[in-house]
Amino acid sequence: MTIQYDKKNLLQKEIKHIDIATFNSVPLIESFGQMSFQSRNLANACKIYDTMLQDKDCTIILSLAGSLFSAGLKKIVHELITNNMVDIIVSTGAIIVDMDFFEALGFKHYIGSPFVNDDELRRLHIDRIYDTFIDEDELRICDHAIKKIADSLEARPFSSREFINEMGRYLDKHGCKVDDSVVYAAYQDQVPIFVPAFSDCSAGFGLLDHQRQHPKNHVAIDSASDFRELIDIVLKSKDTGIVMMGGGVPKNFVQDAVLGGEITDEGELRDPTRMHKYAIQITLAGEYDGALSGSTLKEASSWGKVDQNSEQMVYSEATIAMPLLASYAYHKGNWKKRKPKKLNLLFK
Amino acid sequence: MTIQYDKKNLLQKEIKHIDIATFNSVPLIESFGQMSFQSRNLANACKIYDTMLQDKDCTIILSLAGSLFSAGLKKIVHELITNNMVDIIVSTGAIIVDMDFFEALGFKHYIGSPFVNDDELRRLHIDRIYDTFIDEDELRICDHAIKKIADSLEARPFSSREFINEMGRYLDKHGCKVDDSVVYAAYQDQVPIFVPAFSDCSAGFGLLDHQRQHPKNHVAIDSASDFRELIDIVLKSKDTGIVMMGGGVPKNFVQDAVLGGEITDEGELRDPTRMHKYAIQITLAGEYDGALSGSTLKEASSWGKVDQNSEQMVYSEATIAMPLLASYAYHKGNWKKRKPKKLNLLFK
Amino acid sequence: MTIQYDKKNLLQKEIKHIDIATFNSVPLIESFGQMSFQSRNLANACKIYDTMLQDKDCTIILSLAGSLFSAGLKKIVHELITNNMVDIIVSTGAIIVDMDFFEALGFKHYIGSPFVNDDELRRLHIDRIYDTFIDEDELRICDHAIKKIADSLEARPFSSREFINEMGRYLDKHGCKVDDSVVYAAYQDQVPIFVPAFSDCSAGFGLLDHQRQHPKNHVAIDSASDFRELIDIVLKSKDTGIVMMGGGVPKNFVQDAVLGGEITDEGELRDPTRMHKYAIQITLAGEYDGALSGSTLKEASSWGKVDQNSEQMVYSEATIAMPLLASYAYHKGNWKKRKPKKLNLLFK
Amino acid sequence: MTIQYDKKNLLQKEIKHIDIATFNSVPLIESFGQMSFQSRNLANACKIYDTMLQDKDCTIILSLAGSLFSAGLKKIVHELITNNMVDIIVSTGAIIVDMDFFEALGFKHYIGSPFVNDDELRRLHIDRIYDTFIDEDELRICDHAIKKIADSLEARPFSSREFINEMGRYLDKHGCKVDDSVVYAAYQDQVPIFVPAFSDCSAGFGLLDHQRQHPKNHVAIDSASDFRELIDIVLKSKDTGIVMMGGGVPKNFVQDAVLGGEITDEGELRDPTRMHKYAIQITLAGEYDGALSGSTLKEASSWGKVDQNSEQMVYSEATIAMPLLASYAYHKGNWKKRKPKKLNLLFK
Repeated sequence: MTIQYDKKNLLQKEIKHIDIATFNSVPLIESFGQMSFQSRNLANACKIYDTMLQDKDCTIILSLAGSLFSAGLKKIVHELITNNMVDIIVSTGAIIVDMDFFEALGFKHYIGSPFVNDDELRRLHIDRIYDTFIDEDELRICDHAIKKIADSLEARPFSSREFINEMGRYLDKHGCKVDDSVVYAAYQDQVPIFVPAFSDCSAGFGLLDHQRQHPKNHVAIDSASDFRELIDIVLKSKDTGIVMMGGGVPKNFVQDAVLGGEITDEGELRDPTRMHKYAIQITLAGEYDGALSGSTLKEASSWGKVDQNSEQMVYSEATIAMPLLASYAYHKGNWKKRKPKKLNLLFK
Repeated sequence: MTIQYDKKNLLQKEIKHIDIATFNSVPLIESFGQMSFQSRNLANACKIYDTMLQDKDCTIILSLAGSLFSAGLKKIVHELITNNMVDIIVSTGAIIVDMDFFEALGFKHYIGSPFVNDDELRRLHIDRIYDTFIDEDELRICDHAIKKIADSLEARPFSSREFINEMGRYLDKHGCKVDDSVVYAAYQDQVPIFVPAFSDCSAGFGLLDHQRQHPKNHVAIDSASDFRELIDIVLKSKDTGIVMMGGGVPKNFVQDAVLGGEITDEGELRDPTRMHKYAIQITLAGEYDGALSGSTLKEASSWGKVDQNSEQMVYSEATIAMPLLASYAYHKGNWKKRKPKKLNLLFK
Repeated sequence: MTIQYDKKNLLQKEIKHIDIATFNSVPLIESFGQMSFQSRNLANACKIYDTMLQDKDCTIILSLAGSLFSAGLKKIVHELITNNMVDIIVSTGAIIVDMDFFEALGFKHYIGSPFVNDDELRRLHIDRIYDTFIDEDELRICDHAIKKIADSLEARPFSSREFINEMGRYLDKHGCKVDDSVVYAAYQDQVPIFVPAFSDCSAGFGLLDHQRQHPKNHVAIDSASDFRELIDIVLKSKDTGIVMMGGGVPKNFVQDAVLGGEITDEGELRDPTRMHKYAIQITLAGEYDGALSGSTLKEASSWGKVDQNSEQMVYSEATIAMPLLASYAYHKGNWKKRKPKKLNLLFK
Repeated sequence: MTIQYDKKNLLQKEIKHIDIATFNSVPLIESFGQMSFQSRNLANACKIYDTMLQDKDCTIILSLAGSLFSAGLKKIVHELITNNMVDIIVSTGAIIVDMDFFEALGFKHYIGSPFVNDDELRRLHIDRIYDTFIDEDELRICDHAIKKIADSLEARPFSSREFINEMGRYLDKHGCKVDDSVVYAAYQDQVPIFVPAFSDCSAGFGLLDHQRQHPKNHVAIDSASDFRELIDIVLKSKDTGIVMMGGGVPKNFVQDAVLGGEITDEGELRDPTRMHKYAIQITLAGEYDGALSGSTLKEASSWGKVDQNSEQMVYSEATIAMPLLASYAYHKGNWKKRKPKKLNLLFK
C-alpha cells in the first residue's frame, strides 16, 4: 500500500459520528450479561447506567478522556445531553475545544492511517491522532476563535465552565455549523461542562495570545473555581453517579468531587458517608502501575469516593464499548421520565 | 494470608525512596543496548537523556504522571534538581501536593497490599494506592496547609508555578521535615514546577475552603498563565528536551509547549521549524486507543512537537525503569558540567 | 458484598452461549467503519472475513486461544461450522477438551466472580477462570472419558486431529448432551480440528492415566503429524485465510502452515510466493514485548506468512469483538453460496 | 532515518547475550523491596526465587515463552543450568530450536528495527521479530538439521525431552559453535527440557520433511509422554517451585504438572494437598481477558496448582526484569550449596 502524500488526497474521507438511535444494542448486551470477562462487565456497566437513569435522586456526571470526539463518538454525547441522560460533563480540553468546538466551526476529522511518514505529514500541516488526520491550519483558526472570545470578555478569572458557556454563546451568535455540537447543546440546555486543565489544548494557544496582547488585564481560567462549582452541585444533589470514559484528570476530578463536603476549616470530616452511589469506567489502562487512570473502583472506595455496591470497570477500548453502552440506555428508554436539571442555572 | 484491620498495624512499614547514588546502572544499561525489545529501548532512552545533559543549548523538561512519589521515586527527582539534571518540571497535582508536600510536612506513605477489604480501609481512614497506604487524616492536614498558604496571599490569579513556589516558601518558614523534598529543592534552586490541573489534588480541597471563606476576593490558579510562562521559557531556550514519566496532561502540556511560538494574532505560523530536539517517554499505555498517554513520539512529530531523530518510547512500568534511567545519567557524570538555569528568576 | 462459600450456591447461574442469529451487527459495524481506532479496525476485520467467505478459492482457518468457550463463545464456532463459514480449526486443548467436550458430556460453566477467596474455592473443588466457576469433580470425569477413548484405540501415534475425531465418535455413540458442541459438529461435518499441544489440558490427564496403565503399548499424540496434515490441506487449497482469536501456539501454528511448501530436502525454497491471502486477529496482547501473541501481521509478512494487502489486527477483548465479527459475517449471508469442504475426508 | 535495504547492511550488529556475572542487582532489588508497584513485586519475586534455591527439597522448574533468546536472554538460562539454579525447563519450540539450537549451529540474531518495510525484508529473506532480524536462509539450514537428526533415530514416538536430548548429542558430535547453548548445556548436565508443542517451530519443518520422506515409519513426538515424564519428576520431588517467564503453553503445562498425582482410574483424588510450593511469573499479559497467560497465581490456587503463601506476579517486560531477577539470585550465592539433580537420568 503506497500512500500519496498530497494534502487533498489525505484529507478526503470524513469521520462520521455514530448514531445510537440507528441500532439497538439491548439484545446483544442481554446476551453479554450471561457470558464472562469483559462482555459481562460491559453488560453490568450498562445495567448500572440504566439504574442511574431510573433513580430520580441521582445526578449523572460524565467524564471524558482520550481522543473520543475525533474518533466518531461526539454525536453520542450530544444525544445524552439532549435526552437528559447526563447532567454534568467533565472533560479534557482536547475533546471540548480541539474536537467539538473545532467541528462546530465547520472543520472535520478525516480517516487516516497509522502507517504513514510523519515527516511528510508535518510538511503538509497534517496532524495525526493514531489513524485520524486533522488539517493543522484549521486548528490554528480554532485557537484564534478562542482568543477572540477571551478578548470579548471581562478581564477576570473564569471557571472553565463559565468560559465554555461563552464558547456556546459564540456559536449561537456566529452560527454553529453542525447539528451535533456538545458545546452548543450544553449551552442551550444549561448543562455544565468542566475542563480542569483548560489550557492544555487548543484553548491554551488562544488564551496565550490573548494574555500576551493584554499582559496586565486579561481573562484567567481558575481551576480552583471549577472544583468549587462542581462540588457545589454535588452537595446539592441527593445522590450522584459517574460514567467515566477513560481516566486521566477527568476521572480523578469527578471522583474527588464527592469528598468536597468532608473538609471543614478545622480539617474535620463533615459528611464522611457521602460517596458516589454509582460508578462505571471504560478503559484500557491496567491497574499494575498504580496510576489513577487504571485504578480500580474498589480502590476508590477506600478513599470514600465510590460505593462498592454499584461499580463496574470495563476493560475495553471506548470506540467499541461506548456505543454499546449508550445504545443500551437509549433503547431501554428510562431516560424519558427524567427532567433536565439545567445545572448551569445554579450559577446565574 | 489474613490481614489485621488495625490502623497502627497497617501503617507500619514506610516506603523508602530509592537513592540512585547507591547503585550504578551503567554496565546493565550498556548490556541492554545490545539486546532487543524494551531493554534496548530503555538503553536508547538513557543515551538520549545523557546526550541532553551534554548539550549545552538544551533546556530539560521533566514531566511526571502516575503515583510516582508515593512509590519511592521522589528522591530521584530531588537528585535531578540538586545536580542540575533537570530545568523545569511539569507534573500532576497529586505528585507535587499529596505526595511531595505531604511528606515535607512530616507524613509518610506505607507499604500495603492490593488484596485487602477496602470497606475496612475506609472505616479506618486509610486510603489505598494499589499496594500503598496513606493516613487520610494526615492528608486532610495537608489540604489545610494549602488553605493557609492561599489565605496568606494576595487575592489575584496565580500560575501554579507561582503558588508552588509559595509552598516552598512555606516549608522554608515552617521547616521542611525531610531532606528530599522536590518542592523545597525547587524553591531553593529556582526550578519552576508547573501543575496544569492544579485543583485536581489535595490542593483543590485547600483552595476550595479558601475560596468558600473568601467568596469575593480570593486566590485563583490560572492555568493559562502556566502555559504562557512555560512557553516563554521554551522560546528563550535554544533547544529543548523532554523526559516524560507517564502520560496524561503533563505529557500533552510539555509537548504542546514547543508550538507556542508558532501562532500569531493573524493565526499564521511564526516558527514552524522549532521542535523538541530530544524526547523520551516511559509508559505502559499502548497506542491502540488513540489516547494521548500512549501516543507515539513519531505521531507527535506530525504535529511538529518532537524531532524524530532523537526520540524513544519505553514500554515499562516507571518504578523499574526510572531508577535505571536516572542512575545511568547520574553515573555517566555529564551533568557535572551543567550550570543551574534558575528559570524561576525569569519571572521575578 | 459477602460471598457465601457453599458449592451449590456458587455453581448456580450457568454461562449461556451467545447466538449470533438473534442480533444483527451489520448496521453497527458499518458505522464503526467510518470511525477511528479499534472500532474501525474491527469493521475492517469484518469486511476481510466477509471477503474470505466470498472468495471461492479460499480455505478458511480459525485459530482459537484463551478461555473462549467457558466464556460463552462456543455456539458461535458451532454456527461457523454448520454454516460452512470455517473449514479448519486450530485450538488450544482447554477450549476443545476442558470446555467443549466437557459441556458435551453434560457439564456446565457458571457465572462467578474474581473477588473471591481462592482457598475456599479450593476446599470446595471449584476451579476459577477469572470470573467463571467450574466444578473440578466434573472435570475429573472429563479427564477420565479421554482415558476411555484412548483405551479403546489402537496403540499407535495419532495426530490430534485424528484423536479429536474419535472424541466426536465417542459423543455420537454415547450421546452428546448439548446441541452446540463444536467437537461433535466437526465430527459430523468432517471439519478438521488440530490442537498442537494436545496434552496441555484435560486430555493430558486422561492420556497420562492411559499411558501409565499401558506403559509399553499405548496411544501417542504426534504433534509433527498435526503440522504435516495441516500443511497438506494448505498446499491443496488455492488460497487460504486465517481468522485468529487470541495468539499463542494456535496463531503461530496457522501462520507457519503456509510456509510448509517452501522447504525441500535440500533446504531450498519451493514456492516462496505462497502466503495467507487474508489474515485477521483479535487480541489484547501488545507488540511491545516481542512475543508472538501480539506480533503484528505486518511483521508476519516479513516471514512470508501473511499478505499485507488484506490483514487487520483488532486490539479488543474477544468476548466483545468476536460476537460482532461473527454476527456481521452471518447476516451478510455470503456464506450461503459456500459448500462444505469436509477436509477430514482427505485423510480417509 | 532512511533504511538501506541491503541484506549485508541490515544483518550487521549482532545481539549480545547479557551476562549476569558482570553486574550485581542485589542493592537495586533491595531498594525495590521498599518501594511500590512492580519494583516491589519484582523484589518479592527475587526473594521467592532465592528461597527456592535455599530449600533443599525444592525442584525448580523454569518455563519460557516469548522471543526471549533472540532478545539476548539465552546466556542467563545457560548460567542457571551450569550453576544448578534450575532443574527442569519447559519452553516454546521457537526458543529452544529456532533460537538456541540455531545459534549453536553458528548463526546469529541481529539488531533491527520495527520501523521498516516488511515487503523489502521479505524480498531479502530477512525475518523480523519486532526489532530483531534473522537470516531466513540460515533458519532453513536449522530446519534441515532437525530433519537429519530425525532421520538418524529409530522410527518410534519420542517425548520432546528425548528428542531435544538428541539435539544436544548432535551438537556434541558435530561441534557446538557457541559456549552458551542451553540445549548443549542441558545435554551435558542431564537437565530435562520439555517443549509441549514441539512441532510449532523450526523443528516442525524438519520433522515435516522427515515424515514426508518416510511416510510409513518415522519419528513421532508424543506430547502425552512429555506430560507423563514431567509429572513423574514432580511426584518424585518433595517440593516444587516454578519460575515462569511469560505465559502460554509452558505456563499452563508446568502449573498442571502438579495435579498429575491427583487422578486415579476411578477419577478420585489421590493427593489433593500437593501444590507448587513457590511460583513466580514475569509477564505483560493482563488478567482482564480471562486467558491463561495473564491469569493470576491466586486464581491458580483455586485449581490446587499453586500455594498462595509464596507466589508473585510481576507485570514487566522480560528483557528488563529477567536479568535483574537472575543477577539477584546469582549474587546472593545460595545456589552454591545446591547439587545438580541430573533429572534426565531418571529416564535411562
